[in-house]
Order: sequence, then C-alpha cells, then structure tokens
Amino acid sequence: MRVSVIGGSSIGPETARVAEALGGRLAERGHVVVCGGLGGVMEAVCRGARDAGGETIGILPTDRLADANPHVTTPIATGLGHARNALVVMNGDAAVAVDGGSGTLSEIGLALAQGRAVAGLDTHEVDGVEAVDTPAAAVEFVENAVANGS
Amino acid sequence: MRVSVIGGSSIGPETARVAEALGGRLAERGHVVVCGGLGGVMEAVCRGARDAGGETIGILPTDRLADANPHVTTPIATGLGHARNALVVMNGDAAVAVDGGSGTLSEIGLALAQGRAVAGLDTHEVDGVEAVDTPAAAVEFVENAVANGS
Amino acid sequence: MRVSVIGGSSIGPETARVAEALGGRLAERGHVVVCGGLGGVMEAVCRGARDAGGETIGILPTDRLADANPHVTTPIATGLGHARNALVVMNGDAAVAVDGGSGTLSEIGLALAQGRAVAGLDTHEVDGVEAVDTPAAAVEFVENAVANGS
Amino acid sequence: MRVSVIGGSSIGPETARVAEALGGRLAERGHVVVCGGLGGVMEAVCRGARDAGGETIGILPTDRLADANPHVTTPIATGLGHARNALVVMNGDAAVAVDGGSGTLSEIGLALAQGRAVAGLDTHEVDGVEAVDTPAAAVEFVENAVANGS
Repeated sequence: MRVSVIGGSSIGPETARVAEALGGRLAERGHVVVCGGLGGVMEAVCRGARDAGGETIGILPTDRLADANPHVTTPIATGLGHARNALVVMNGDAAVAVDGGSGTLSEIGLALAQGRAVAGLDTHEVDGVEAVDTPAAAVEFVENAVANGS
Repeated sequence: MRVSVIGGSSIGPETARVAEALGGRLAERGHVVVCGGLGGVMEAVCRGARDAGGETIGILPTDRLADANPHVTTPIATGLGHARNALVVMNGDAAVAVDGGSGTLSEIGLALAQGRAVAGLDTHEVDGVEAVDTPAAAVEFVENAVANGS
Repeated sequence: MRVSVIGGSSIGPETARVAEALGGRLAERGHVVVCGGLGGVMEAVCRGARDAGGETIGILPTDRLADANPHVTTPIATGLGHARNALVVMNGDAAVAVDGGSGTLSEIGLALAQGRAVAGLDTHEVDGVEAVDTPAAAVEFVENAVANGS
Repeated sequence: MRVSVIGGSSIGPETARVAEALGGRLAERGHVVVCGGLGGVMEAVCRGARDAGGETIGILPTDRLADANPHVTTPIATGLGHARNALVVMNGDAAVAVDGGSGTLSEIGLALAQGRAVAGLDTHEVDGVEAVDTPAAAVEFVENAVANGS
C-alpha cells in the first residue's frame, strides 16, 4: 500500500534518524512512501526508503520537478502552494506524522478529514492520531488500520 | 480588513449563537467575513454578518455557486475539494476558529503556515492559537495582531 | 449574472478600448465581471465596469491580494498558478474572450469543457466560440445563451 | 524524459490505434508517459506504453486512485476537477495532443503557457502546435524540442 509521511522541513539529527528508520521499515514491508518531496522529514524518509530498495512519490508545492529531494523516485509538480498539502495525504492509504509544525498540523487535519488513519511519532497531540513510540509501531498501526477498513 | 472564520459544518445551537455573534461583531467593526461558504459555523457567521449589514465571501469546495449558504454575498466556486481549505485562510488577513473538527484543524494549520494570526473560540488547543472567551475578544485579538503586522 | 472575461495580459490600445467598452456594457446590463485580476484585458474590462458602477471579481494566480489591478472590487487569492484558470471560467455563467494568447486559449477550453457559452472578440478561432464584432454583440450573445439554458 | 499525452476520453478505434502506437514509441525511446489517467486516448497511450515495458503516470481529476485506467503504473489523485489539467502538462517536459475536444484544447493552451513544446496528431489547429502525421514524427519532434531547450 501507500503511506503518506508528513513532517517538518527543518529538523534535527534525532528526528532525521527516526524518519529514515520509518522509510526503511515501510520499504521493507513493501509499501510506497508518499510525501511532500522537499527537505527535512520528507528527505529523510525518502532516503531510508531508497536505501531499503523502496519507491517514493514526492508531491511538490512548486511547478518544478527539480525541487524534489534526490531520494524521490517519482516527483510530481503541482504549482499549488499550500493547497498541495491535501494531495499529499489523499495519495496515501494512511499517514504517519513525524515531528512537524503548522504545515504538518494542516496535513494531519486533511488526512483525518479524508478518513485516513494517522500514526504520530513525537508530533502534535490531536484526537484521532495514534501516538506511537517507534517507526515499527507506526507501520504496524497503519497496516492494521487499513486492513480493518479505515 | 478581511477575517477568515473557520469551524464545523455540523454544530449545536450554542455554537451557532457564538458564530452568529462573531459575524455581527465583525460586520459592526467594518470587516468582511471570509469562510468556506457551507453550513454550520459558516452559515451562522454569515447570517450574523448579514444581519449587521456586512459582506461575506464563501469559498466553496464544489464547482457550484448554488451550494453556498443563503447569507453569502460573494460565493466563489473552486471545485478543489479539500484543497480549497488553503484558499479560505489565504483570503483573510487573520482567522478566527470556532469549534470544529478535522477540517477546521487543517485550516488552523494552513492559517498558521501562511503567517496568519488565529484566535480560537472553544476550538482545538494548538500552539499559536490564541484562546479567547468571547466573539468581541476574538475580534479585538485579530485587529491588534494585524495592526502589529502579524 | 456573472460573466467571465478572459484575454491577454499584454495588449495594445485598441484591444484595451474594446475590453473597457465590454466592461462598461456588462455593468450597464447589471452583470458582474469575473476575470483573472491582473493586467491587460483583465484590467481594462475592470476599469470599464467600474466606471459604469459595476462590480468586478479578480481570481488571482498568486497568494497575494495586492497583485490585483486597482479596478477589482473583490480580489480572490488562490496561489494555484496556472490551475487557477479553471476557477476564472467556473465562476461565470458564460464567458467572453478578447484577444489573448495561450493562457486565454486554455480558458476557452476550460469554459467549453464546463459547458459555458463563449463569445469571442478578435480571439482564437475555435469551434464552439461565437465570433462577434462588438462588445454589445458579445453581451447580447451570452445573455441569450444563459437565458436559453446554456 | 517525460512526455504528457493529452486527448479525448471518448474515441474511435483509429484514434485508439494511433494513441497506442504513440505510447509504444515513447516507451521504446525510454520516455515516461504522463496523462490524465482516465479512458480514451489516456487509456490507449498507457496500454501501448505498458505493452512496450514503459512507465505511465496518470494524474486524475478525482480523489480516488481506483479511477485510473488499468495501464497506469503510478496513479496520482488530485480531487481538483478541471484544475488538474494544469498538472498534466506541467509534469511533462513536452506534450503530444491526439484528437480531443475542449478539455484537450485547454491542455494545449496550458502546455504552451508553461513553455512546453506541443506536437499534434489530428488535433486542434493552434499556433504553436506542430502538426505531425505519425506517432514516430511526434516523438522525434518533442525529443528535438527538449534537446534544443524548449
């Protein structure tokens, strides 16, 4: 399945490590990563997925494919600015949020509004988001949620 | 100025009363209401604004102007679905959130991501949202925030 | 009713004169002008409408209301870039094309695809666009088309 | 490179044959097909590309991946309706139009407005579109145009 990974574009090394491990875990389990295609969590999760042989889709806010981070296998330009956030979560069967600020908060809201299950790793505390402690737990949660029809 | 009012589409009578009072206060202060154009908080705030002689802009998710509630003076069709949430907050100088679920949460995130000041009336507790107790306090907060360059 | 006016952003004085006369005619007939909010035909038609006391809606490709020409009474920011062209024609009951290049051609296509009647003043020759010689004839054509259910 | 293929959703067998041959030719030359993901020309070009081992990206107007035709390898949901047309041509380095109606005309306009070279196979006669007679000639034209910096 596809899993949208959302999170901040400006992060520290520990968050990068978590996002990279998440990408690796998703790829090992055969899932495609969908993200916003830029830096920070988006780049780290793509790097982790690629190192494990996975595929990554980056849905960019700009109209230039060259803005994608180097670990995106399929960049999609939109030119939509902030409105592209809706597309990032629409294209996953479920979502995992890692850290993040107001942009990530908007994507959590858009994911829930579109009926997607959302796991959270050290992110906003929001009703409907399942707080988990590890990338493996995040992947297990979204797999179960999708299997159960969420 | 323009103030985006965001909130749930399915609300009880007390929330409707608050939203209507907010619309009235905004209109009395000479502000234009921007909202998503549908029911619930969107309809109540427009009704309040209209009763006080104000103007209301409704930015719809659908491609049909007829989907606007009857108190919208300028409906704008978008056909963008959830992606239209970005436009609702982009078109205000600041925002007030009233109650609301995941769609409102996404709009709070989008407002903050676009640098808008946000006041909250009985809504999500989010860093960066100023919790206020009354419509008048909400209007005072956003007026001051915009006057101070936020 | 609302009439979308589409046309080039870089025009000569004769085209400006035609667009301005069109705006005046639309306003005299009680119609609201919808356009892309920028310069050229968009500015001239808004100026003509305003001089006749009409209303004008400008649906901008950028996320800044300040990008609207000074004759737009209700600017709408979208931040959608080229994708906003769909919204310009969606928000009119019919459309009039004046001169114009590839952007205008895209709007003609989008108008026809959404079932709008389109009159053309010295614009692209396209099946389904009614070529007319004067602003008055353009207004008469779209009035009749909408009255007849197109 | 990526080539956007645009064309009608309701076509006859001869147009389907041309679109399928075009898809095959693009895949043989190592290019990725980008299209709107639905039926008609979109489905035929994807089928041709897949039969030759190529990749296909389908950028859908709806919010459901399941709406993609079965020959799309990477479906992208947008929920944007007609506004998604801008994304179809934005995501190709150049475009080929095959047959088509008003939607295709809008995509031709959007491609030209975004500086893309456009080849046309039995499609609208538009300034700036290179009319060609065969799929091979279409591919050769867009390859040369992109090589020359268009």
